[in-house]
Formats: sequence, structure tokens, C-alpha cells
Amino acid sequence: MKKVKLGKSIPPLPLPVCLLGAEVNGKPNFNTIVWFNMLHDNPPLIGVAMSKRHYTNIGIKENRTFSINIPTSDMVIVTDYCGLRSGSKVDKSKEFELFYGELKTAPMIKECSVNIECKLINKIDFKNTELFIGEIFEIYSDEKYLIDEKLDASELDSFIFLMPNGPYKKIGANLAEAYKVGISYKPKN
Amino acid sequence: MKKVKLGKSIPPLPLPVCLLGAEVNGKPNFNTIVWFNMLHDNPPLIGVAMSKRHYTNIGIKENRTFSINIPTSDMVIVTDYCGLRSGSKVDKSKEFELFYGELKTAPMIKECSVNIECKLINKIDFKNTELFIGEIFEIYSDEKYLIDEKLDASELDSFIFLMPNGPYKKIGANLAEAYKVGISYKPKN
Repeated sequence: MKKVKLGKSIPPLPLPVCLLGAEVNGKPNFNTIVWFNMLHDNPPLIGVAMSKRHYTNIGIKENRTFSINIPTSDMVIVTDYCGLRSGSKVDKSKEFELFYGELKTAPMIKECSVNIECKLINKIDFKNTELFIGEIFEIYSDEKYLIDEKLDASELDSFIFLMPNGPYKKIGANLAEAYKVGISYKPKN
Repeated sequence: MKKVKLGKSIPPLPLPVCLLGAEVNGKPNFNTIVWFNMLHDNPPLIGVAMSKRHYTNIGIKENRTFSINIPTSDMVIVTDYCGLRSGSKVDKSKEFELFYGELKTAPMIKECSVNIECKLINKIDFKNTELFIGEIFEIYSDEKYLIDEKLDASELDSFIFLMPNGPYKKIGANLAEAYKVGISYKPKN
């Protein structure tokens, strides 16, 4: 085992993929984003770091709402497409069946297994990116993923992106139960 | 397809898992964290949202350094253990072989496939969490993961956590090439 230095770069990480939705100039737009994660539990806050060059940012600031839509494996081609083409050049609003929640201006994608409707509560500026902080207003999923009225996250058929260059990867087999396998661990000290 | 509302809750997402390292009162400590992701590209900034109750936070603020260590699948039991037990109660510094980089105070785990050495540049306060913003100072990996001097992220054998309750999952088969499969997509409009 010999450690090598890779420099100040983008680390290799397996990240979930979303189609970030917002209405820009009255039209729904979607951008493929992997730099998002939870920031806070109660109220649930989610942060999305987006390049300032993205067209979608305009709509997030305009309406102060956005959506995070988690695509299924069979949506990988259109997901990649939404990341390759800017909403300033192409109209991506026709690629999906859309629906809206109570916030009215956060377009969501019916085909996605999970939809997170967010209200923008803050924005933090960096040089090249802005971190949008959204309060989760409602989460939607599909009836078919529920078991005894609870969501079975294992069945969502979402996929991941291996940062920084891909590929997209499926989610694999169960490895271990969380909050459980560590209980019987015997510490070395 | 019938959408159901899941309320204002923690969304189901497949997230990478890290052992967050910091020196607390002069002793290395590690905590299992999944709320972390990139915030900025150049310089590379990474954000980690941590419950204020965590013992590790004290060390991050004390030294203004921390590390993000990505465990391999065979480390899943000790990874779960590090999330179950607080450094205020148990000494986790003996569970791993450690090394340090130029920042001197960010303990890193040799057994992990990727180590990200970070310098704290900012901290944003929320009610229950604090978002630590670190500039990536150096990334380390192991010689064995390099192909032609470049890291092959597919070989890292990292795993993911299915938020909110687990299980831990392996990373599965390739699904599609990124920045590529979308090129040939035929838009519907």
C-alpha cells in the first residue's frame, strides 16, 4: 500500500444524480446536477451548488422555488442529455410529463421516482458557483414504491454518477445493515 | 403511476460514505458522515454538514483542518461502528493506520482508498448543524488504483448509504457513459 498525491482536484466520489427543475422566464427547465446534499434535518434543508453559468439559476432566483427530481435507470440517456444542453439553447420542457405542487412554480417530473419540492431560503455566493439552500416543502414518490405505506428506498432504481468523469453506475447489492453491523464490532484498543 | 406525498422529511438518496477525521484535544477522531459534497471547483471546496452534537466538530474548529476518508467495502463494519459511538466516549484513534499530510493536524486513514485533506475556510451555522467549508489541500489515493498514472474511480471499491435508514449498498455495474450517451438523444419537441 503506497499513497500517492493527486493534488488539489475534484475527488472521485459516487454521487446521486438529479434533474434540477425551475421555471425560467415562465418555462420549465431541467439541469443535471450531482453537487447536492442535505444540510439540516428539522426543518429539512437541502443545498445545491451550481455553476453561475447555468441557465436554471435564473429561474431559481426569479421564483425562489426549485425541484430535485431523481431519475430512474431507464432515464439515463435523457438525464445525460439535460446536462449536455443548456436551457438557453433548447427547450427541455417537453421531454417529460410534468406536475406541480403547492409552491406552484417548481416543475416536477412524473417519470422520476422521487421529487423534492423546495422553497429557496438562502443563497451563498462563491466565485464560480452559488449554493442554493432550499427548505424541503414536500417529497413525492410513486405509490408503487410503498410497502405498508412506507417508502422502500431499495426499490427506487436510482443510479449514481462516478465523479469526476463518470460512468453512471447502477446501485448494487446490499452490503450491510446500517446502524447495526457496527454494534458487534470489537475495538482494537 | 400515482404520486404520493411523503411530507417534509429526509429524502431517500444514495450517498457516498466517509470517515470524517479531525484531531480533538490532540487525539485523532473519526465520525461516519454522508452529508458532504462539492461546493466549488477552482479552488476545490467541499462542504460537510454535521450535527452540532458531534464531538469531531470541536477538533475541526480547534485546528481548522479535517480529512474526508472514503472507506472500502471491507471496512463497512468499522465504518458503521464509527457512526454509532462518540469520540467523547471511546477512543477511535487505534482502529486504523493513520498518516498526516502537510497540514499536520488532519489525521487520515491508510486503509481508505481516497483521503481528502482539507483546510477549513468557513463555517455556516444552522439551528442543529454547522456546514464546514473546506478547501481541498491534497487528495491521496493508493498506487494500486492508478492506471497510466490516472486514478481509475471504478476500482476504488467504495460503497454507498441509502438515506435515511440504510442499508449500505455496493456500487453496481456500469449503466452508461457520462457526457456521451445523451449526445445522440432525440428531443421530443
